[in-house]
Amino acid sequence: MEIKLVKSAGFCFGVERAIDLAVESSKKYNNKKIFTIGHIIHNNDVVNYLEKRQVEAITPEEAVNIKDSVVILRSHGVEKELLETVKKNNNIIVDAICPYVKKIHKYVDKLKNENYFVIIVGDKGHPEVNAIYSFSDKDNSIIIADEKDHEFIKIFEKKIKKIGIVAQTTQEFDNFEKICKRLLPLKIELRIFNTICDATSKRQKESIEVAKESDIMIVIGGKHSANTKRLKEICEKIQPDTYHIENEKELEKKWFDNKKTVGITAGASTPSTIIDNVLKAIKNQNFHSKII
Amino acid sequence: MEIKLVKSAGFCFGVERAIDLAVESSKKYNNKKIFTIGHIIHNNDVVNYLEKRQVEAITPEEAVNIKDSVVILRSHGVEKELLETVKKNNNIIVDAICPYVKKIHKYVDKLKNENYFVIIVGDKGHPEVNAIYSFSDKDNSIIIADEKDHEFIKIFEKKIKKIGIVAQTTQEFDNFEKICKRLLPLKIELRIFNTICDATSKRQKESIEVAKESDIMIVIGGKHSANTKRLKEICEKIQPDTYHIENEKELEKKWFDNKKTVGITAGASTPSTIIDNVLKAIKNQNFHSKII
Repeated sequence: MEIKLVKSAGFCFGVERAIDLAVESSKKYNNKKIFTIGHIIHNNDVVNYLEKRQVEAITPEEAVNIKDSVVILRSHGVEKELLETVKKNNNIIVDAICPYVKKIHKYVDKLKNENYFVIIVGDKGHPEVNAIYSFSDKDNSIIIADEKDHEFIKIFEKKIKKIGIVAQTTQEFDNFEKICKRLLPLKIELRIFNTICDATSKRQKESIEVAKESDIMIVIGGKHSANTKRLKEICEKIQPDTYHIENEKELEKKWFDNKKTVGITAGASTPSTIIDNVLKAIKNQNFHSKII
Repeated sequence: MEIKLVKSAGFCFGVERAIDLAVESSKKYNNKKIFTIGHIIHNNDVVNYLEKRQVEAITPEEAVNIKDSVVILRSHGVEKELLETVKKNNNIIVDAICPYVKKIHKYVDKLKNENYFVIIVGDKGHPEVNAIYSFSDKDNSIIIADEKDHEFIKIFEKKIKKIGIVAQTTQEFDNFEKICKRLLPLKIELRIFNTICDATSKRQKESIEVAKESDIMIVIGGKHSANTKRLKEICEKIQPDTYHIENEKELEKKWFDNKKTVGITAGASTPSTIIDNVLKAIKNQNFHSKII
């Protein structure tokens, strides 16, 4: 059985950096309480690993009351108002916000100051999007999921002179493009920042290529991770025998009957240790047993 | 025989305004020499009419030496350097530049000052495009006809941080859209000003509708007028029996044999008197004879 691993599977640069900073902080500030606002990534193994090192994930509501501690800002970013409160409360701030996400905050801030109506293309309620939105003027900005979004359609009834557009880093380009295309015929100024991160599209493209050459596709990542779920959907279109697992314990022997080539990919929040474990389990045909 | 005239046939707002200003100037400054840099529009009848009123069309090269006279800036605009020279030479300036074209000059100037690489979507050599280009930094801007343009392809090899895009007013939206679409995947800032004038697309759309309902289509306008030629091409696709004429003298009786519905449209530089003459000639079946 041949195993093909997607090159860009797993952690992206921003997530890798955030975890490194969290681990570093747990060593550096061992005399202080350490918190992350929300889970640093959507992966239980990493969260458990950090908890063992006294790094505790808290909700934004809880974060408001944290004082004299270390607060790690995760890669997704943190809402502006909350960040200001956390700073005021005499906490040490460890900024693990992805630099690409921080750029979006800067663009939105700039667009707001120059009186652009701001469109954020992204998933409403996603922490990255909430944080981006917090940098905008709420009366002069919207979050839209796609071109059919009710809020988007309303724009065409308003008299807007100039529109600025940014996207959540993990958005699909096609969706972003459709929205920009709808706005192009307007006789107004459009200031477009394509802030979609290559990591996601690169991983998707490479996964499609591997799926084409495989008899079975294994997608590794948290069951709640949006980018992993999307990766599964994309691979499934090419190879119906696609399975989404969180770790090697979920692998089933029967999936591999009569399969010659196994493709493996992983979402942005999957650590390399888990990918390694899955690879080993398949290679050794070691299913339904713990591998550590 | 039914005659259908396209509603938006003929002069656009900018051309109408320029001719009015030229006629006005010929009355107001009757003790001075009056010049237009280039023909005020691509229409011999109008040019002859103005010449009779002492308004003389000169080349940009000739304009450099004009002093103590009245210089009318036509709707297409005038190159920045030339305008500065004409102003220095103690001439009275009559600014008949289309306000929509002037807006493009302002956008290009702004983009230049803010260090954008400027893309002008337009026909190289067209006076409107030459004038727009003169407001840019030549080392940091290009004129491109379409997405296949060699100059455009070179952009993708350069390391450009931010691109500003404007269009000649008479460009087709599809062409402009294709270029913007090619740029969208780039991870840079795009500042897009859709400066295409509605007058042209409206005229084209309405002409298509009339062509669909007609057995023969007459397109009136200067033989060198780019927008009239384009209008002919568009109508021809719908109705192969399409004829491009400059005035009613070119109408031929045989064209109308067995035709029930005649569609009529006209380019942006066609005065209403010529359209009226064509209408009358067809209505009265008065072909190959002068109508004044």
